[in-house]
Amino acid sequence: MKIVFLGTSAAVPTRERNTVSIYIMTTNGAYLFDAGEGLQKQLQIAGLNPIKIKAVFISHMHFDHVLGLPGLLMTMALMNRKEKLTVVGTRKLFQFLKMFNKEFYMDLTFEVEFIEAHQGSVYKNKEIEVLAFPTVHSTESYAYRLFEHKLKRKFHPEKALELGIPRGPLWNKLQLGESIIINGKTIKPEMVSDPPPAPLSVSISGDTAYFEQLIEFFKGSDIIIHESTFSRELANKASEMLHSTSEQAAIVALRSGAKLLALYHFSERYKDVSYLEEEARKIFPNTVAAKDFMCIKIEDNDINVFNNINECE
Amino acid sequence: MKIVFLGTSAAVPTRERNTVSIYIMTTNGAYLFDAGEGLQKQLQIAGLNPIKIKAVFISHMHFDHVLGLPGLLMTMALMNRKEKLTVVGTRKLFQFLKMFNKEFYMDLTFEVEFIEAHQGSVYKNKEIEVLAFPTVHSTESYAYRLFEHKLKRKFHPEKALELGIPRGPLWNKLQLGESIIINGKTIKPEMVSDPPPAPLSVSISGDTAYFEQLIEFFKGSDIIIHESTFSRELANKASEMLHSTSEQAAIVALRSGAKLLALYHFSERYKDVSYLEEEARKIFPNTVAAKDFMCIKIEDNDINVFNNINECE
Repeated sequence: MKIVFLGTSAAVPTRERNTVSIYIMTTNGAYLFDAGEGLQKQLQIAGLNPIKIKAVFISHMHFDHVLGLPGLLMTMALMNRKEKLTVVGTRKLFQFLKMFNKEFYMDLTFEVEFIEAHQGSVYKNKEIEVLAFPTVHSTESYAYRLFEHKLKRKFHPEKALELGIPRGPLWNKLQLGESIIINGKTIKPEMVSDPPPAPLSVSISGDTAYFEQLIEFFKGSDIIIHESTFSRELANKASEMLHSTSEQAAIVALRSGAKLLALYHFSERYKDVSYLEEEARKIFPNTVAAKDFMCIKIEDNDINVFNNINECE
Repeated sequence: MKIVFLGTSAAVPTRERNTVSIYIMTTNGAYLFDAGEGLQKQLQIAGLNPIKIKAVFISHMHFDHVLGLPGLLMTMALMNRKEKLTVVGTRKLFQFLKMFNKEFYMDLTFEVEFIEAHQGSVYKNKEIEVLAFPTVHSTESYAYRLFEHKLKRKFHPEKALELGIPRGPLWNKLQLGESIIINGKTIKPEMVSDPPPAPLSVSISGDTAYFEQLIEFFKGSDIIIHESTFSRELANKASEMLHSTSEQAAIVALRSGAKLLALYHFSERYKDVSYLEEEARKIFPNTVAAKDFMCIKIEDNDINVFNNINECE
């Protein structure tokens, strides 16, 4: 899995930071979390294909999280997309898309399936499942947690050979969790492999004030991507505007037992965000402040952070 | 006057080119023509202040010309703009803004004055006047022509001294076209200066197929900024999609008697647009293919083109 930051700025873009969007690539597809204005250009610069996106998850309807969505849909149509696109978000997002479609004749070449965000499972396919949880913000807003099912089990060839299963496609089926029938006998995957590994999970806060229940929702995440609009000096402002400080993000990561915390959604006042990173590291050492085009690669439980997507092959 | 290209791509952005927007700076303000998605980021990179924009002119409601407008308005509000902003465009633009305002509670801190585009004068202040003219495109679309009134006349000090007007603020008033009274005698500006110079004018095509009447509307422009979506090889496609080739743009410039032609709005298929520039130059030699952040500076009838706004001081 690869996580690419296409924007890391709060409210308005800066020279270096676009408004927020996170692109997560899995083996078979891509998933987008929020869609700030300028998203299409960021995808172009990153060399990412918008057609691969299977589903878009919008945290809330503040403009810096959603203004890139209509352009993305139009571009997909210009590229003659045929595959259904799922869009998850609040009822207001549904109105927004409907209005665009009705008033401005978006000639989409594909179906948009809208799913209204709610607490619980909002999206599921063979590869991933996404859960949503309402956050504390000035408008209805959701955090998301993506689970990638690691289908490949640890396989024991000697057991398979013992049971008379020849090396080949049947082994592969068993390793992927399917039962097979050989010589009239049913072989279950657990007879020749370990139980499936725990799914990998990545949590994304969207916009939120610090609150206890989010820690529960994020519990055991491999990676937490948390907003970090302000530094601890502006904790009052954060609390008033229902945003988080980098210190609060670190507390969430620490108490959730995450392996890595990536901070994003920085106020434009911070030209250099290494200060916010340092603040968080005092509480949760394995913290990184995301930059536009930064890439996190997760492979066989190894998590590596690359400054630029080009290094993330 | 300075003209800065904030986007030069048709339909979708490329790595190098944003969707279209042109920022024109005069002595006392700035005027924006079209507002492609990602505009705010482009303004940031160019170091241009959105607050200075007095009026926005939208050619038509295709998404690549207008998706940057809501974000721009929100940013102006975040910057606590108080001055009225004039927005000129089609009735559909009005619906678009109304809908954003109503459904999404844009908390604007300033008044937006909407003027419906129509053939003729659509905007006028002390400094400039803008005329609109309907073009031939797949939706209601307008070309615009901006006239900057050059107020400063050529002044004749010897005539002023002869009439007993002392060097000082009175000379300045006369030079700017105001009459004065000295020793009970009225002195008119034409008694001590040449007639006011012709206003500088810049024409912008928006999206359009080639058609004769546009040449009339552009007649005598100093600078013509003309869409150049395709090359002459794709003249049929241009005609079918109601766009122009670079050759057609050059014919418009030639027959309008322009001093400079700047091509923009290039199809993403052209990685390098120098080919389109060459094509136009065969017909109208003083052609330049615009790049993002290119700047055209006009001073005392000298027109200079700079590759980057930083060189355009």
